[in-house]
Amino acid sequence: MIKVGIVGGTGYTGVELLRLLINHPEVKIEAVTSRAQAGTAITNLFPNLRGHIDLLFTEPTLENLANCNIVFFATPNGTAMQSVPELLKLGIKIIDLSADFRIKDIAVWEQWYGMEHACSHLVADAVYGLPEWKRTEITKASIIANPGCYPTAVQLGFLPLLEAGIIDTGYLIADAKSAVSGAGRKANIGTLMGEVGESFKAYNASGHRHSPEIIQGLDEYSNDKVGLTFVPHLVPMVRGIEATLYANLLQTDMKLEDIQALFEQRYMNEPFVDVLPLNSHPETRNVRGTNMCQLAIHRSQTNNTIIILSVIDNLVKGAAGQAIQNMNIICGLPETTALMNVALSP
Amino acid sequence: MIKVGIVGGTGYTGVELLRLLINHPEVKIEAVTSRAQAGTAITNLFPNLRGHIDLLFTEPTLENLANCNIVFFATPNGTAMQSVPELLKLGIKIIDLSADFRIKDIAVWEQWYGMEHACSHLVADAVYGLPEWKRTEITKASIIANPGCYPTAVQLGFLPLLEAGIIDTGYLIADAKSAVSGAGRKANIGTLMGEVGESFKAYNASGHRHSPEIIQGLDEYSNDKVGLTFVPHLVPMVRGIEATLYANLLQTDMKLEDIQALFEQRYMNEPFVDVLPLNSHPETRNVRGTNMCQLAIHRSQTNNTIIILSVIDNLVKGAAGQAIQNMNIICGLPETTALMNVALSP
Amino acid sequence: MIKVGIVGGTGYTGVELLRLLINHPEVKIEAVTSRAQAGTAITNLFPNLRGHIDLLFTEPTLENLANCNIVFFATPNGTAMQSVPELLKLGIKIIDLSADFRIKDIAVWEQWYGMEHACSHLVADAVYGLPEWKRTEITKASIIANPGCYPTAVQLGFLPLLEAGIIDTGYLIADAKSAVSGAGRKANIGTLMGEVGESFKAYNASGHRHSPEIIQGLDEYSNDKVGLTFVPHLVPMVRGIEATLYANLLQTDMKLEDIQALFEQRYMNEPFVDVLPLNSHPETRNVRGTNMCQLAIHRSQTNNTIIILSVIDNLVKGAAGQAIQNMNIICGLPETTALMNVALSP
Amino acid sequence: MIKVGIVGGTGYTGVELLRLLINHPEVKIEAVTSRAQAGTAITNLFPNLRGHIDLLFTEPTLENLANCNIVFFATPNGTAMQSVPELLKLGIKIIDLSADFRIKDIAVWEQWYGMEHACSHLVADAVYGLPEWKRTEITKASIIANPGCYPTAVQLGFLPLLEAGIIDTGYLIADAKSAVSGAGRKANIGTLMGEVGESFKAYNASGHRHSPEIIQGLDEYSNDKVGLTFVPHLVPMVRGIEATLYANLLQTDMKLEDIQALFEQRYMNEPFVDVLPLNSHPETRNVRGTNMCQLAIHRSQTNNTIIILSVIDNLVKGAAGQAIQNMNIICGLPETTALMNVALSP
Repeated sequence: MIKVGIVGGTGYTGVELLRLLINHPEVKIEAVTSRAQAGTAITNLFPNLRGHIDLLFTEPTLENLANCNIVFFATPNGTAMQSVPELLKLGIKIIDLSADFRIKDIAVWEQWYGMEHACSHLVADAVYGLPEWKRTEITKASIIANPGCYPTAVQLGFLPLLEAGIIDTGYLIADAKSAVSGAGRKANIGTLMGEVGESFKAYNASGHRHSPEIIQGLDEYSNDKVGLTFVPHLVPMVRGIEATLYANLLQTDMKLEDIQALFEQRYMNEPFVDVLPLNSHPETRNVRGTNMCQLAIHRSQTNNTIIILSVIDNLVKGAAGQAIQNMNIICGLPETTALMNVALSP
Repeated sequence: MIKVGIVGGTGYTGVELLRLLINHPEVKIEAVTSRAQAGTAITNLFPNLRGHIDLLFTEPTLENLANCNIVFFATPNGTAMQSVPELLKLGIKIIDLSADFRIKDIAVWEQWYGMEHACSHLVADAVYGLPEWKRTEITKASIIANPGCYPTAVQLGFLPLLEAGIIDTGYLIADAKSAVSGAGRKANIGTLMGEVGESFKAYNASGHRHSPEIIQGLDEYSNDKVGLTFVPHLVPMVRGIEATLYANLLQTDMKLEDIQALFEQRYMNEPFVDVLPLNSHPETRNVRGTNMCQLAIHRSQTNNTIIILSVIDNLVKGAAGQAIQNMNIICGLPETTALMNVALSP
Repeated sequence: MIKVGIVGGTGYTGVELLRLLINHPEVKIEAVTSRAQAGTAITNLFPNLRGHIDLLFTEPTLENLANCNIVFFATPNGTAMQSVPELLKLGIKIIDLSADFRIKDIAVWEQWYGMEHACSHLVADAVYGLPEWKRTEITKASIIANPGCYPTAVQLGFLPLLEAGIIDTGYLIADAKSAVSGAGRKANIGTLMGEVGESFKAYNASGHRHSPEIIQGLDEYSNDKVGLTFVPHLVPMVRGIEATLYANLLQTDMKLEDIQALFEQRYMNEPFVDVLPLNSHPETRNVRGTNMCQLAIHRSQTNNTIIILSVIDNLVKGAAGQAIQNMNIICGLPETTALMNVALSP
Repeated sequence: MIKVGIVGGTGYTGVELLRLLINHPEVKIEAVTSRAQAGTAITNLFPNLRGHIDLLFTEPTLENLANCNIVFFATPNGTAMQSVPELLKLGIKIIDLSADFRIKDIAVWEQWYGMEHACSHLVADAVYGLPEWKRTEITKASIIANPGCYPTAVQLGFLPLLEAGIIDTGYLIADAKSAVSGAGRKANIGTLMGEVGESFKAYNASGHRHSPEIIQGLDEYSNDKVGLTFVPHLVPMVRGIEATLYANLLQTDMKLEDIQALFEQRYMNEPFVDVLPLNSHPETRNVRGTNMCQLAIHRSQTNNTIIILSVIDNLVKGAAGQAIQNMNIICGLPETTALMNVALSP
């Protein structure tokens, strides 16, 4: 059995890790920490887990985590980097769901996250946990920088096009829409239902923290400096991300069927990327509660612009599910273990 | 008093016309027709109108409408074109909220709407009822082709850029998101709350009926054939459209402030277009129940792509409100009459 | 012109007062105060008001309010009672939308609101601002205790039955459901959309602050001590309250038609209470954005239990609209001034 | 392996049966029928099942079902009763999720369902599939009348009180609230998101088809004729039922702790009924996607009225999950097989 700890278990990614790990046949949940809730039964905070887990939240001390093989950080940005060095010394592997280890360029990270990095020497060692791209590196990693939700949906859509070198990398557009759980479980006027219910808006249109993360990936796929415009939007729902991606084909006579074939080929052996048939429109509910990414390809009627539709569950493939996928890979388990549930729809 | 009739008063644009006309000081509602509901009190179907209107639905006969000065068609596509010729002969002016008179190229119309046009000779005379563009022509029109909801939001966003000739017209993108009331009030599995609640999706990504309507406008603004990619999406809410528009500046050193000034200049005297200050993100609730379009301008951090955010209430500026704005213009009334209510937010 | 001030203008009742007062022909908005936002343009916080109001928020000082005829308090409980005495001395009339003056029994108030009352000597003078019950007293009042949202919906439903003395007062049940805006606009995990979206629950089933307020009214209508069970619930929507009320008829052979007649008679001259025909089911959207209460009456199929359905907009008849109705009465204006807008539906 | 067929697989209970059966280790899905969709891949209609099932919909012929051990009917009312007799002759056991076999009194059934019963002689043999009440009979049943969603939530809440004989059976109130998926997946104006989104209402307050079903159960628990008032409401969400139940204690001095103990005792060995600690308020999301019923008990502050809060997922414990629970019992499998997933929350 793999002994796992979860640091920061009171947020949405924390409870989602628990939901998925509870039914994982090779995992024993050793500790779930929360400074604020230490001593409280987990089920007090999350009554959906009643009957499935008996633990109390504990203090996030080294001692409480020392017995783990894997520790997940489901903490706000800036927390994991404080504790990772000493956990590594104990031989514990880290899967960080926050942004602390995602950006290789420390200056860029510090600019976007507004703080000094506490263990910048470890960032180079961290592996970006997008298995469809970095599977081999993940098997040997000590620190997984688990991708952000938007970056997962956007990169999986652009990846085959950029690897194949068939699009103009200077003008990529990602128009992404997220449910409100992406903003986390913290007291905040901006994500009250009174503020975001029955309304829709773009936000951070001039720049969002996930931009540099996405660009870092796209640059590497394309061996080039891409020009990306990323605009996130807030949807009045609880779960799900949809990204609509636009790119211009370099060869205007390229057929849609060939691009479809390219995507099918690229993701043929991927258990969690599903390329829908031509003319499909994935809905976020198709993947609700699951680790799947559904993709569909369309083409503009007036020019050589290609449209990629990409949906994930922001809390699963965009966070907790992908983290467990990474854990499965690191631990040599079948990658799909505990991740083959069927989406809840409607 | 202007005597108005509404043909097809049982849908969402019908009840919205009633909501707005009830408080119009210069209007008398003469007849509201519905073949299916003839004889029923309007308030039976729409209890939100109780205390405000006493009429019954009547049969959509020429006789019932003969006394009107203005007739609004709030009917499915293909209905208005059957009755418009004989109403015109009576000297009645027509404001058609359906698509029957929007597309000048009859062949294109017939292809997208899947039927033969019943009075194609009148299409050339119809004026496209976007007052911000065609105000002068509207004053003299006998038939107003009231714009579609998506076309209103998209065109108002692109118009200043295209008139100024500062963007690459070959690569325009309109990523638009609509509430479900845009699909109308008709029995349909696809827009059940069980199907569209708590989910988000793109639809008609390879081609939507509003594309040719938008393109017809953009072509004319730019004196060119634009290359437009238009992707509509469905938002789990009842009212509102947000369109995020992308275009590439021809001069890469153009400043955002200059573009902001261009928009402010263009819409300076427009009562229903509000250009927000730089760094704003309009929410659909800002304009709920009102005839306003709010616009905001942003720029990509990595290249010369400009981002325009545009929000309207799909049932007001995108349908009934704009129809009344057109009526006010035709009738020589102050354009804002009965349209200055404050948005309901939250 | 009546010069009005709003203390605490940054919450949902504050912005709703502004929405309704902006179009009030006899009102000049003199000051809108907010300690936290003093100096900010009101439209920065509430972009739905753009084009309708130019004021900045100001400090809640006596000086800033001294020029007003009427001051509305849209503040958290416990704030109005601090300032009311000195405003009264200036001859200003107070309409308090919080709970500070609603409960006549100071001990009961202090128990439920968890603080000492700062001006308990004024509570007896305050008039409970439910015009359908206290219209005459309201005309002469200096302090209006504007009713809570639940109490408005519940009392208007029970009032005719209790005044007529035809029900068993020992067993009254009010099963009430509120939209989330009732919880206010403040940072709070419990009303995040991530917490309350796509879910439904009862809360405070063993006791809610609105219970003593409701009971105080019901006792007085019935000249008796009623036995009330009040259970509030949270609905995943932004606006609206529905209360389903249950009471047992004393005479089991009483006809439903007679009860219907009783309600119609009682509310015959009330502009804001609409008794629907038998067999109706009011929806909260019927009254969205308006000051109306819609009522409908049903009877159990198995016994002598009567069912009353009552809907209001919690922010209008349940707060800001009723406050303006009270202001109109106090100022001798037609009671419906600025309150005759049509409900936004859908 | 148990070979199962599903008749009428295109509705919400059909797809939910599939979601749950796909991961059932002892089940082979033999046939999923749909007259309208015969020949279509199931995943075309339900893309959330992609990768989990390869079947096509087939015609609902005897031949296509002859090979099954168990046939589930997820059909509209009035369909199962046409085919059940001949399936029984083949030795197939029936689990009917519709209402055809729920009401023992044929006249009552015919009155509420508006048709003649096609095999009334079989109704007496059918076992009402509420395992918490009829477990023993279910083991031997050939026809299971799977309970309705409201009846499940309401009966589980009243059952311990009625069995114990501690409440006044003349005045029972069930104020129940359902998500819209309860209305099924069929073209219908009344459940469009445009009609039910952002609104709340009671419906069928004077009588609902589930009333006689509930009363039949309550009468039997109490050995008496109960007086029940049942009012259903529609919540703007996709899944979930909450029922708030009211009953008056016969002994006014009975303690809440004793009632709590009674409930805990009654459901001690029930895997799918979870009695929450005192002072709890179950939310529908606590049980989303699961077969659990969560109950909580409260008491009125003014009299001897007891309040029971009951939540289920209408499509799981209220339909498909309970059907599989019944199948597990009939087939001698552990009752919880394939039903121990964790609720999706948020």
